[in-house]
Amino acid sequence: MKVTLENVLPGEIEARSFEIITEELGGRKLDEDKAPVIKRVIHTSADFEYADTLCFSDGVIGKALEAIRCGASIVTDTQMGRSGINKRSLARYGGQVYCFMGDEDVARQARENGTTRAVAGVDKAASMEGPLIFAVGNAPTALVRLYELIKEGRIHPALVIGVPVGFVNVVQSKELIMATEVPYIVARGRKGGSNVAAAICNALLYMIDETRGQ
Amino acid sequence: MKVTLENVLPGEIEARSFEIITEELGGRKLDEDKAPVIKRVIHTSADFEYADTLCFSDGVIGKALEAIRCGASIVTDTQMGRSGINKRSLARYGGQVYCFMGDEDVARQARENGTTRAVAGVDKAASMEGPLIFAVGNAPTALVRLYELIKEGRIHPALVIGVPVGFVNVVQSKELIMATEVPYIVARGRKGGSNVAAAICNALLYMIDETRGQ
Repeated sequence: MKVTLENVLPGEIEARSFEIITEELGGRKLDEDKAPVIKRVIHTSADFEYADTLCFSDGVIGKALEAIRCGASIVTDTQMGRSGINKRSLARYGGQVYCFMGDEDVARQARENGTTRAVAGVDKAASMEGPLIFAVGNAPTALVRLYELIKEGRIHPALVIGVPVGFVNVVQSKELIMATEVPYIVARGRKGGSNVAAAICNALLYMIDETRGQ
Repeated sequence: MKVTLENVLPGEIEARSFEIITEELGGRKLDEDKAPVIKRVIHTSADFEYADTLCFSDGVIGKALEAIRCGASIVTDTQMGRSGINKRSLARYGGQVYCFMGDEDVARQARENGTTRAVAGVDKAASMEGPLIFAVGNAPTALVRLYELIKEGRIHPALVIGVPVGFVNVVQSKELIMATEVPYIVARGRKGGSNVAAAICNALLYMIDETRGQ
C-alpha cells in the first residue's frame, strides 16, 4: 500500500481545508453571510449534509455578531462544547463561556425536579444578566426548556444555537426552537454535537475578528 | 406545526437511544465485542456510516480493555476530547487523561521544529511511562508522527484511536496507522472528531464497568 501525504505547512492546513470544502460544494450558492458558518461546520464534521440541514432565522448572522460585539456570553450544555469555543476571541468582546452541567446546585435541582441537569442548567442561566447565546450541542431537553421559557417570556436569548445530536426528542426540540421568534441557528434532523455547536460559535467569532483585521 | 415529544425519563434517554440505534441497524450483524463501540459512536454522531467505516485491528477490544485495567493513561490531541472522556471511570483503573496542546514547551517545540503542536504533543507523550492509549480526534499530523515513532520502535502504544476529521492528510494518516502492528480503532475516511474519540474511550470504559457490575 502506498500512502502519499499532501505537503501542507501547519499554518496552511485550515486554509487548504476550506479550499477543498469550497471546491466540493461546487456551484452551490451559499448566502455570503452564512457561508463561513456552514463551511466551518463542514470543516469540523467532514459532513456535507450540513449544507442542507443548517437553518438560519432571518437576519440571524447580523444579530449574532452584534450580540457578541456587545459582550454576549455563551452558555453551553457540555464541557466539551465549552472546551471547543475560542474563549480568548470571545473575551476580546467582553463575553465568557459558561457550562453549568457540573455545578452542585444544578445537579441538586435536577434531582429534586426529576429532570435533566441540562434543564436545570438552562433555568440557572435564565437568571443571568446581559445578552446570552445558548449553544446546545447535546441535550434536547435543554432546547425544550429554552422553548418553554421563551414562550413564557422569561428568557430572551440573543441567539439559540440548537444542534443537539441524537435519537430521543432531538428532531422535535429543534422544530420547537424554530417555531419561536428568537434568532436561531439550528441543524435540522438528528445530527449535531458539541463540536458543531463550538464550530458555529467560532465561525461567528472569526467573522468579527476578520472585520477587525485580526 | 404540531411537535410531539416522546415521553422518556431523564435516566432512560441513553438506553432508549441505544434501542433505536439497534433497531435501525436492523439485521446487521456486528461482532459482539465491537458492537458497544460502534453503537456509542453512532450515539454520539447520529451517523450510521460509522457502522461501515470503523476498522478494528485483530483482537483490539480485548487488548484495549486489558490496557485500561492495567492503568493505561489516555493522551488526546484536543481539550475537547479530554473533556468528553469519563475521567472518573478511567481513574478507577489508575489511568489519567492528558492533553499537551496547551503546554508551553509543546508550543515552543512546535515553533522550533516548524511542525504542529499535535506533533510536538506526541513527542512529549513518547517519553511517558506505562501503557498509553492515544485518542486522536483532530490532528492527522499527530497520527503521522505516531506512525513514524512506531516504525522507529520509539513508542509502543497499547492502543491508537485514529479518528481525526478533515480534509488534509486525514484519510492517509489513518491508512498509515492501519499499516502498523499496533492495536488500533480507526474511522476510515474523512469523518471522525474529538467527540468520536471520546465516545470510543467511553465505550471501552463502560464495557469494563459493566463486567464489574457498575
